[in-house]
Amino acid sequence: MRATLIYGAGDVRVEKVPDPVLREPTDAVVRVLRSCICGSDLWPYKSMPVSESMPVAERGQRIGHEFLGVVEDVGTDVSGLKTGDVVVAPFVWADNTCDFCLEGLQTSCRHGGLWGAPGVDGGQGEAVRVPQAEGTLVKLPVDEDSALLPSLLTLSDVFPTGHHCAVSAGVNPSTTVTVIGDGAVGLCAVLSAKRLGAERIILMGRHSDRTDLGREFGATDVVAERGKEGIEKVRELTGGDGTHTVLECVGLKPAIETAFEVARAGGVVSRVGAPQYPEVPAGFGVFMSNITLTGGVAPARAYIDELLLDILDGTVQPGRVFDRTIGLDEVPDGYRAMDAREALKVLIRP
Amino acid sequence: MRATLIYGAGDVRVEKVPDPVLREPTDAVVRVLRSCICGSDLWPYKSMPVSESMPVAERGQRIGHEFLGVVEDVGTDVSGLKTGDVVVAPFVWADNTCDFCLEGLQTSCRHGGLWGAPGVDGGQGEAVRVPQAEGTLVKLPVDEDSALLPSLLTLSDVFPTGHHCAVSAGVNPSTTVTVIGDGAVGLCAVLSAKRLGAERIILMGRHSDRTDLGREFGATDVVAERGKEGIEKVRELTGGDGTHTVLECVGLKPAIETAFEVARAGGVVSRVGAPQYPEVPAGFGVFMSNITLTGGVAPARAYIDELLLDILDGTVQPGRVFDRTIGLDEVPDGYRAMDAREALKVLIRP
Repeated sequence: MRATLIYGAGDVRVEKVPDPVLREPTDAVVRVLRSCICGSDLWPYKSMPVSESMPVAERGQRIGHEFLGVVEDVGTDVSGLKTGDVVVAPFVWADNTCDFCLEGLQTSCRHGGLWGAPGVDGGQGEAVRVPQAEGTLVKLPVDEDSALLPSLLTLSDVFPTGHHCAVSAGVNPSTTVTVIGDGAVGLCAVLSAKRLGAERIILMGRHSDRTDLGREFGATDVVAERGKEGIEKVRELTGGDGTHTVLECVGLKPAIETAFEVARAGGVVSRVGAPQYPEVPAGFGVFMSNITLTGGVAPARAYIDELLLDILDGTVQPGRVFDRTIGLDEVPDGYRAMDAREALKVLIRP
Repeated sequence: MRATLIYGAGDVRVEKVPDPVLREPTDAVVRVLRSCICGSDLWPYKSMPVSESMPVAERGQRIGHEFLGVVEDVGTDVSGLKTGDVVVAPFVWADNTCDFCLEGLQTSCRHGGLWGAPGVDGGQGEAVRVPQAEGTLVKLPVDEDSALLPSLLTLSDVFPTGHHCAVSAGVNPSTTVTVIGDGAVGLCAVLSAKRLGAERIILMGRHSDRTDLGREFGATDVVAERGKEGIEKVRELTGGDGTHTVLECVGLKPAIETAFEVARAGGVVSRVGAPQYPEVPAGFGVFMSNITLTGGVAPARAYIDELLLDILDGTVQPGRVFDRTIGLDEVPDGYRAMDAREALKVLIRP
């Protein structure tokens, strides 16, 4: 079969790889119906060092952590799943039974891990061996050709990530919200904040096609300015105070700096952008304002059951973040397009 | 009257100053019965630059932010207080009616401020002009010679600060706790965690006289090691995981670094040590573990009513943190003794 491998910065290839087979009795094999490219895939695409010391043939790493598909085979220890089931996988696999999982923190599962890690398949391919399949996969009550597949695919990562950001921040009808970043996660954070009842949602982003979708998702104000000017604008919009919650959906230092500057005293900065910085600017001023920093990698599995219902009944359409659909062979160009901001989020039909 | 002024690092003097008088109709004047020296007073004592450009006579700043005393005079806009009332003041004065105050964040009061700021008295003196007296002062149902005065004085700062640390962290009977720092705040954090029902409280501190008191306050384990060894020790005590909550009561970079290293995934680091660092080491690893950073300057006023009851009925005795009592003239030596760690916390009887 074919799958996507990354060899280094800017070097993504679609290649023939062995078909996945069951290795553990807790495995399943899933034929991928839809996958996609994540903003976080762009970090290695931008900066992954090439391992010169390794033979080229060994350098490639499987990549992709968002997929839904059809169960093709299940191990003997897997209950509740059978060949033909349509399923979605969260972006971290987990047994869903350990103490962390039971607390809703499947990203810290004692027997889980990341897609694309050594010995583990990535999602951007024709099929995937799924470890801990019973804990990881969630059955979807739809057919292979459902029009809902794009929105259901967002359950892998981008929608629960936006939701995690909003829930961790404590967004509710009485909290004002600033969302930093108009990428797919930022837009899903807007959607999630709206879904949790927020009435005032300020979206900071400068790509009008994206912020336009943000408005449709629930943003009440858009601030295109960045840095100092952007901070002043948000403060202006909030009587000088900033917002109760700030959803940081970028991961770069200027974004987290801005986040603390637009947070109201006693408020919460919640971050889901994978930090590309070692330290957080949360010194004396943040301390004196009692601003909390929360969030982190989203335990998507904890949220899928709840969010799924809203997709099935049409309450939300997070799949609207996909603005380009490609085949597997076009994946390298999909990376290029997302990196160049030609595409917001790229859907893959293998 | 006499009051304490700080002129620069290591230079604390007790001098004659004008008697306080009502300036605003919202003021009161309080004769001080008890005051004390705070760990945070030691920051300027260690490092306050001397303003060489200023005439010496103008360099002194009033200092001290913890006091209880007797009301001597009240402004025309002050209700509920009268001459002779015994009262305690929180370490930030506030109107207790603005939106922040009503949310329990009196440290961000729109009309409040700090003791010892320009034009505002400090607490280490014979008397204090109290701005926003009605919102700031809390009446104490005791006499001037009550044996409870030391514990009641801790309501100014150190007890509510420990409590804020524990409450913000979400300490409850099912959370394990690490307290970093065996100063008076750390010990009050132990007391507060115990009061909130925590059953496992690990105290990190290396002064056995202090950690002994910590054990009496509720610590179940003491870790004297610091840095890497201390982290390993706490992890060892918790099956490798760390604790659900970490109460950081120091304010130095190594302490906040340790805090994140001993926090369990999904846990909370709560800090009340005034940060002597500009940035928090909360990058990718902390993000992947979904560890929250919370806490900040404690809105003592929000907690006094509740904590007072437990002091009055003898449930807690936070006044045990005072291990030395001095007169006002001995204040410079009190600073020296606390800075040299000869004294844990110094009580002043002006």
